[in-house]
Amino acid sequence: MTARNIRLTISYDGSEYHGWQIQPGHKTIQGTLSEVIWDLLGPEVRIAGASRTDAGVSALGQAALIQIDSPIPTENLVDAITGRLPQDIVVTEAVEVPQGFDIIGAAKRKLYRYTIFTGRQRPVLQIRHCWHLRTKLDVVAMNQAAKMLVGKKDFKSFAAAADKRESSVRTIFRCDVTAENEWVYVDVEGDAFLYNMVRNIVGTLVEIGSGRRLPEKIEQILEAKDRKAAGPIAPAAGLCLMWIKYA
Amino acid sequence: MTARNIRLTISYDGSEYHGWQIQPGHKTIQGTLSEVIWDLLGPEVRIAGASRTDAGVSALGQAALIQIDSPIPTENLVDAITGRLPQDIVVTEAVEVPQGFDIIGAAKRKLYRYTIFTGRQRPVLQIRHCWHLRTKLDVVAMNQAAKMLVGKKDFKSFAAAADKRESSVRTIFRCDVTAENEWVYVDVEGDAFLYNMVRNIVGTLVEIGSGRRLPEKIEQILEAKDRKAAGPIAPAAGLCLMWIKYA
Repeated sequence: MTARNIRLTISYDGSEYHGWQIQPGHKTIQGTLSEVIWDLLGPEVRIAGASRTDAGVSALGQAALIQIDSPIPTENLVDAITGRLPQDIVVTEAVEVPQGFDIIGAAKRKLYRYTIFTGRQRPVLQIRHCWHLRTKLDVVAMNQAAKMLVGKKDFKSFAAAADKRESSVRTIFRCDVTAENEWVYVDVEGDAFLYNMVRNIVGTLVEIGSGRRLPEKIEQILEAKDRKAAGPIAPAAGLCLMWIKYA
Repeated sequence: MTARNIRLTISYDGSEYHGWQIQPGHKTIQGTLSEVIWDLLGPEVRIAGASRTDAGVSALGQAALIQIDSPIPTENLVDAITGRLPQDIVVTEAVEVPQGFDIIGAAKRKLYRYTIFTGRQRPVLQIRHCWHLRTKLDVVAMNQAAKMLVGKKDFKSFAAAADKRESSVRTIFRCDVTAENEWVYVDVEGDAFLYNMVRNIVGTLVEIGSGRRLPEKIEQILEAKDRKAAGPIAPAAGLCLMWIKYA
């Protein structure tokens, strides 16, 4: 019997986890999910994620591939897995995909949303999922800068130094900054992302929004191809992986 | 020197606390707040709350009275206290009130909001602050029942058996059920509330909304003056004390 390949869509509140990636001695999303899946479908099932979200980062549309021998109908997997998961993780979809499906390589587009709260008082009910900045932000300037990031470009200046992948060229399809009362959202849609890329972009846009840099500086930052040219990294709590699109 | 009476307004995410009320060996809102205030203003300061919210219940507008000898300006108290509190508690306002101010008795109106999510999948980012019910609710029927609760009535059927206060007569000014996509909100505004009263009302309204009881039954439930006549208690996570109005 050939194993079936199943792609799962997963939502989680990452605030109490040490990120996606399984790590001995740490509570992680992949680790928690794996225990449930091994219990349900057998200890030989491998679980591969599409994005290695960091500690404190949440997701509404993470994707993972599992290869299973179990005859359980695909449509029953969502409830069977979710029913065994803690309340801050949920499987929202399970679809069968072809043999050899590459959960990382087959991802065509991803959307990340970064949430900032600019009001005076800490928003206690949302504090786990935002960056609380007590500064007013110039959303027009931030958008002007954001637009310069759109296109196929070398984003080396926005990649964590730890990133050792060969090419740092990625395509950003959309980078929008929107405001709603005291909330500011940065949406970044791209084909793939370097390590810490969205948080480094947001940290830089916030420097621009608070008047510490001019929007035009984005061009020089990109040209520098040096992490030190960009702004500081934004905290993990504000970041959420919204969705991943597959062909 | 006469002590000054200060009324604080406090917001908190109650999901990781054993309620408002200080309890040895348990993490509570009043306990956490007291430690910060004692540290800042001296160990003799007494902190009295307006509402004893239960474990898991949140608040945007809890009120508390402190009597302080410290010369610290009232307007500096908000930041001084908040800066020492954990991220899930915040003091949003501090105002001086007259000697003899009764933080419980002087409260004229309170609004509680109860949040229900009726979608299929657990809303992971809001799960600490809602009741996830996978049932569609008849909001029209719930409102019809809610309207019968408005007025000065004996709410004994909606009070926890543990409630030993003499009179169970309270006034509800407003009880509205509203829906927004898969979210349902029950807003209850009253002069004061019996122990567990809002959660017992919501549990009963949900029985009506899911068709297990008719809206008209509310009259009989009120008349019975018996906790067993009403529906089951709704979970703590969905409840939030929105505000308290003082004369």
